[in-house]
Amino acid sequence: MSLPSLRLKANSDRRLKGGHLWVFSNEVDIAQTPLTAFTAGQEVQVETASGKPLGLACMSPNNLICARVHNRDVRHPLDKPLLVHRFKVALALRERLFPQPFYRLVYGDADLLPGLVVDRFGDYLVVQIATPGMERVRAEITEALVQVLKPVGILFKNDSGARAQEDLPSYVEAAYGEVPERVALEENGVRFEAPVWSGQKTGWFYDHRMNRARLAPYVEGKRVLDLFSYIGGWGVQAAVFGASEVMCVDSSAPALDLVEHNAALNGVADRMAVVEGNVLDALRELKQADEKFDVIIADPPAFIKKRKDKRNGEQAYRRLNEQAMRLLNKDGILVSASCSMHLEENTLRDILNASARHLDRHLVITERGFQGPDHPLHPAIPETGYIKSLFCRVLPV
Amino acid sequence: MSLPSLRLKANSDRRLKGGHLWVFSNEVDIAQTPLTAFTAGQEVQVETASGKPLGLACMSPNNLICARVHNRDVRHPLDKPLLVHRFKVALALRERLFPQPFYRLVYGDADLLPGLVVDRFGDYLVVQIATPGMERVRAEITEALVQVLKPVGILFKNDSGARAQEDLPSYVEAAYGEVPERVALEENGVRFEAPVWSGQKTGWFYDHRMNRARLAPYVEGKRVLDLFSYIGGWGVQAAVFGASEVMCVDSSAPALDLVEHNAALNGVADRMAVVEGNVLDALRELKQADEKFDVIIADPPAFIKKRKDKRNGEQAYRRLNEQAMRLLNKDGILVSASCSMHLEENTLRDILNASARHLDRHLVITERGFQGPDHPLHPAIPETGYIKSLFCRVLPV
Repeated sequence: MSLPSLRLKANSDRRLKGGHLWVFSNEVDIAQTPLTAFTAGQEVQVETASGKPLGLACMSPNNLICARVHNRDVRHPLDKPLLVHRFKVALALRERLFPQPFYRLVYGDADLLPGLVVDRFGDYLVVQIATPGMERVRAEITEALVQVLKPVGILFKNDSGARAQEDLPSYVEAAYGEVPERVALEENGVRFEAPVWSGQKTGWFYDHRMNRARLAPYVEGKRVLDLFSYIGGWGVQAAVFGASEVMCVDSSAPALDLVEHNAALNGVADRMAVVEGNVLDALRELKQADEKFDVIIADPPAFIKKRKDKRNGEQAYRRLNEQAMRLLNKDGILVSASCSMHLEENTLRDILNASARHLDRHLVITERGFQGPDHPLHPAIPETGYIKSLFCRVLPV
Repeated sequence: MSLPSLRLKANSDRRLKGGHLWVFSNEVDIAQTPLTAFTAGQEVQVETASGKPLGLACMSPNNLICARVHNRDVRHPLDKPLLVHRFKVALALRERLFPQPFYRLVYGDADLLPGLVVDRFGDYLVVQIATPGMERVRAEITEALVQVLKPVGILFKNDSGARAQEDLPSYVEAAYGEVPERVALEENGVRFEAPVWSGQKTGWFYDHRMNRARLAPYVEGKRVLDLFSYIGGWGVQAAVFGASEVMCVDSSAPALDLVEHNAALNGVADRMAVVEGNVLDALRELKQADEKFDVIIADPPAFIKKRKDKRNGEQAYRRLNEQAMRLLNKDGILVSASCSMHLEENTLRDILNASARHLDRHLVITERGFQGPDHPLHPAIPETGYIKSLFCRVLPV
């Protein structure tokens, strides 16, 4: 089988040789291989300016990132056998790390499957595809997953914003078997049900698993506030870890219904309260009511979705964290999380320090947390690292 | 009580206002307050150019960092009552986080006690003083520690290199009670004895506690190599976590004797071997003998002690990690650690990626670890963060 070539310009091969997987459109020798000659999702062989093969990739010819490499070994194209191999390699890591089948099974670039995410909830798999290359082989993805994992159901949760940029349609459908509205999972010994059809992303955020585990020694016997709680990932775990009281704030009523459901699943409903509304409004009202908390978790949705949102987004993080800090009891803990890829950990650290100084507090960081090991970092692709979680001890000066 | 003033130049107060604690000699208005007028260790009131008090500090008048602030509240000088207060605040965090009394109790700047480190081994305390300010109050430090912790013995392990720069003498002595040659500790459920009089630093490295805890799922049933093992912090824990075999390499015979002793304490001596010698030589010999390992831990002493060592030090990290990587079995794990403050995590990440690419491997980072929460990061003083630990999965391409 012979694949068409995608020829790079001279000196445009350095990043790929360094392990990166993306080809940018301005790196292509369009005299030799015009981008207009390719269809979206088409598989190509990427070559240096002198014709040396660098790997196999799938095209997004109208995109800034115009191709993503899925194999350096040019003998094996993106087909069912390669997918089976990749899934087995990905599964080997997760089975080594986690005693139960609840994790991100496939994390795009880091698992050499750019554009593909698979979250596993026991017998159910939720798949997200972000590129036309993966969309083209979606039948093979389903077949390979069935072969390797023998699931009861596979859901394609293909409604992310990234798809629009690739001219891919938005849809949510069961690609295999039957998938219920909510599926069960366990994280750090705490039981949950996640709304895989209608929830955020795949329905659950496995990425903060290790950071939530670290809550345990901080919350025992404490009053906890969980901002942007979604379905209670942090809050319900805090209650199970021994918090005396947990208040979850979110703007979504269905999410808060699931907080209560998940609390009940773990027998901690009596120690949990939910508040529906805008988080900043809620913080203002709690301040006016002179409410105080020992531990506050601020894990908002990405305030910086694109590089151009950086300044506004940083201000939003500052406002949120500073308002939260005002509600802390004397020796309080602020857990400040961010999933904005464009917010560096150091910038978040500086924002937290500036807030503390503004309030005349002494702040130190006791825990620096990142995404869990089922979301490995590809060292050549900084974008594969996006989660930050800083546990801050906030004291009077 | 009135303390002499240390007057800053105009616009030299910004860093202190931002939470930093150090005054650099070129920031002092030496026309108003000449550095030659101060004695080493003397307490002063730091002031802005317009005379506004910023805090109390102790002087190191002959040093680039000529003063370190220990209190923003100028009413309370560095005396026994302030030390008692600081120790109680430091202890409150550690008691919240750790079920047993084995931790760094005081971590310098982060605990607002610049120049002072106290490691706790149950009833024994090991103190390290790095500044003349803390040396001046060493009797009060002892008294305050006795009041707050009621220890059986306190050892002053005042033999660090930093002291020579401050013209402080090098000595090791029991400041209170009796301190045995080795003291017991427990970390992650594993028992150790640490040589507090004669070992490295305070005798033990509590800073890697959380990173060692993460070894557990990676080492079960695996063959492990621990490079620069010292007394077995990583290696013995790997064995207790279920490694089938652990080889510890170190150049110090007394350290390796303690590896064996600590292994025996935990009933894992039969699965441990020690190799005395230079680590790079040992790696070469293991390669020649075609030995392979599933997990390799490379936690060397700081290769970059000063900024000027950066280039050579980075080459040393590259050499060590790349040689280690060659000994890995097919789906192997390299735990690459560094305690060099001048080596950024991103630089270590790039070094590891470059090594992997050079050996034609695909490397991803599954765990990004830092120092544990008994070594809090002061957000305005990046130097307070120094530990890095990257768990790398290394696969064939």
